[in-house]
Amino acid sequence: MDFRARQKKLQSALERHKVDAMLILHAANIRFLCGFTGSAGALLAGRRPVFFTDGRYTGQARAQVSGARVAIARKGLLTSAAAACASSGARRIGIESEHLTVAQLAAFEKALGKGYKLVRLAGVVEELRATKDAEEIERLRNAVEMSSALFRPLLRHLRPAASELSVAARLEYSARRSGAEGMSFETIVASGVRSALPHGVASSALLPSAGFVVLDYGVVLDGYCSDMTRTVHVGKADGDERGIYAAVLEAQLTAISAVRPGATAGEVDAAARKVLKRARLDRYFTHSTGHGVGLEIHEQPRLGAGVETVLEPGMVITIEPGVYLPERFGVRIEDMLLVTGTGYEVLTPVGKELIELS
Amino acid sequence: MDFRARQKKLQSALERHKVDAMLILHAANIRFLCGFTGSAGALLAGRRPVFFTDGRYTGQARAQVSGARVAIARKGLLTSAAAACASSGARRIGIESEHLTVAQLAAFEKALGKGYKLVRLAGVVEELRATKDAEEIERLRNAVEMSSALFRPLLRHLRPAASELSVAARLEYSARRSGAEGMSFETIVASGVRSALPHGVASSALLPSAGFVVLDYGVVLDGYCSDMTRTVHVGKADGDERGIYAAVLEAQLTAISAVRPGATAGEVDAAARKVLKRARLDRYFTHSTGHGVGLEIHEQPRLGAGVETVLEPGMVITIEPGVYLPERFGVRIEDMLLVTGTGYEVLTPVGKELIELS
Repeated sequence: MDFRARQKKLQSALERHKVDAMLILHAANIRFLCGFTGSAGALLAGRRPVFFTDGRYTGQARAQVSGARVAIARKGLLTSAAAACASSGARRIGIESEHLTVAQLAAFEKALGKGYKLVRLAGVVEELRATKDAEEIERLRNAVEMSSALFRPLLRHLRPAASELSVAARLEYSARRSGAEGMSFETIVASGVRSALPHGVASSALLPSAGFVVLDYGVVLDGYCSDMTRTVHVGKADGDERGIYAAVLEAQLTAISAVRPGATAGEVDAAARKVLKRARLDRYFTHSTGHGVGLEIHEQPRLGAGVETVLEPGMVITIEPGVYLPERFGVRIEDMLLVTGTGYEVLTPVGKELIELS
Repeated sequence: MDFRARQKKLQSALERHKVDAMLILHAANIRFLCGFTGSAGALLAGRRPVFFTDGRYTGQARAQVSGARVAIARKGLLTSAAAACASSGARRIGIESEHLTVAQLAAFEKALGKGYKLVRLAGVVEELRATKDAEEIERLRNAVEMSSALFRPLLRHLRPAASELSVAARLEYSARRSGAEGMSFETIVASGVRSALPHGVASSALLPSAGFVVLDYGVVLDGYCSDMTRTVHVGKADGDERGIYAAVLEAQLTAISAVRPGATAGEVDAAARKVLKRARLDRYFTHSTGHGVGLEIHEQPRLGAGVETVLEPGMVITIEPGVYLPERFGVRIEDMLLVTGTGYEVLTPVGKELIELS
């Protein structure tokens, strides 16, 4: 990973924001900027970056951190970072206002003492993270490929009266056996009426003899997340179910077609919503159309109503409209896409035809 | 769960802090106070508690939330919570300074407008959570029993040249099959020289033909976490390895004996450290002796050097000293304990003799 190139981009941003340095505490931002994968660290980014961690991570930090000096904080990360500000002459210091807690800010201010100006910044590193470089795209492809390969073999475990948990257990076991560091979020296996819950994580509920099962899952591989959803039917689907499935699929394909550099996130969301409106289903589509994916499962851009973020080549996003009929059933279909120079590439190599399991 | 009793205790605390209401955003605190298990919510605690969530969680909130009115926030959680402050007449409002971000505080202040005083509070709900009630202790026992039952069957998968990841995969599969909602943290399987890493999460490394394997894991069951560590030896341990194992075990048993209501967390930590100092190993014990466990894997109290928190009946804690010889090997042994009215009960029913796998 080219950490120096990323820090150079950050340095330009810091100059635009007129700060001498920036305190980074958010773990994914730290990993993006200097490669450290542990949970306790602070990066003081700027002209002479310093990474602070505690004694548990000495060896790991020395092995992983690139583009920053490693220092072991004996008296706490914030105290050490404040001391480094003093010795480097930094006076205007950016903070991550969306991650730093009120208590951390107070502690940092106290450790700094007088003579400093803290500048509240939001989304500075996240914006850099929204467009992926070649190595990140490669890792994301690998994560998507791994999770996609798990899908078909999983289907033989979807049988009437199997528990949702047993399906999730089998999936997660296969993911780990394939080398995943873990799942990128709590696995959703939502069957029968539970498919109407947009966030129906696997429960002890048993699969019905006939009905939808929403499978929404992803893996973490080399730090990068994948995310996919397929909705399959145990037994034969009836006319209503087929109709809803077809509408969601059309909405998903239409939104995908709207993805291109220069389009806004809101336009892609609107494309999905328009299809569902025509089918009088838009009020059952209760979430946004997608989101960026990378080191975290939810990143910039958010593809929601009215969002004006412009899509750029290198962004990796999900497209995942859904329709949820309360107390009846729900359908969601989700792929990951790469925004390319001219349009898009669907990364998820799994068919979207309605699967009826006999 | 007796959510009303918990909110009543919180109400007393709010009166002591002279606030009319408190904005709770931290998910574990929300779950503790009103039972909601989703990821997006805000509880305005006080005389007339209101729980806010978004449209995705309408059904779930209505089903789960106890002791608070449920409201669906159409314009964002903070905006809705601010409007509720206005209509209820609350003027002095507590915030969770250790959880609320700088950006959230600014948004909440803006939504409130003039005439309000925000009082920065820290650890108010966490302090209530530190001592567990009967139902919580029951759930913690169940989580500990489940993870303990997974230990012996796991050992037959510990063979030279098996990958750490395959061991973790097998463990996690068994946990899921047993009904766990997930693991309580990223599973540590640290073998050979990697056992010297206090946080050696399972990697693609292969188990050596002879050497230690640190197994540190836990499950989440009904929302509550377990946490245990055993260090086993593949093949025969040599004299050095036996000596270190014996010292860590003695430190662990001595720290356990120091657990009683009225003792400070620091005293328990000191008991472990004293044993290791006598063996001239204290400088290789680079973390604290333990921590509280409950809805989160790390809760109050922290059992570290000099911590003055007094142990109370109902606290559930870990005791987990370790010794890490860089580039050589490490040993850690960890149980969960309940602080009782007169002393302690070790919850983890797994032997601690040195196991040598042939």
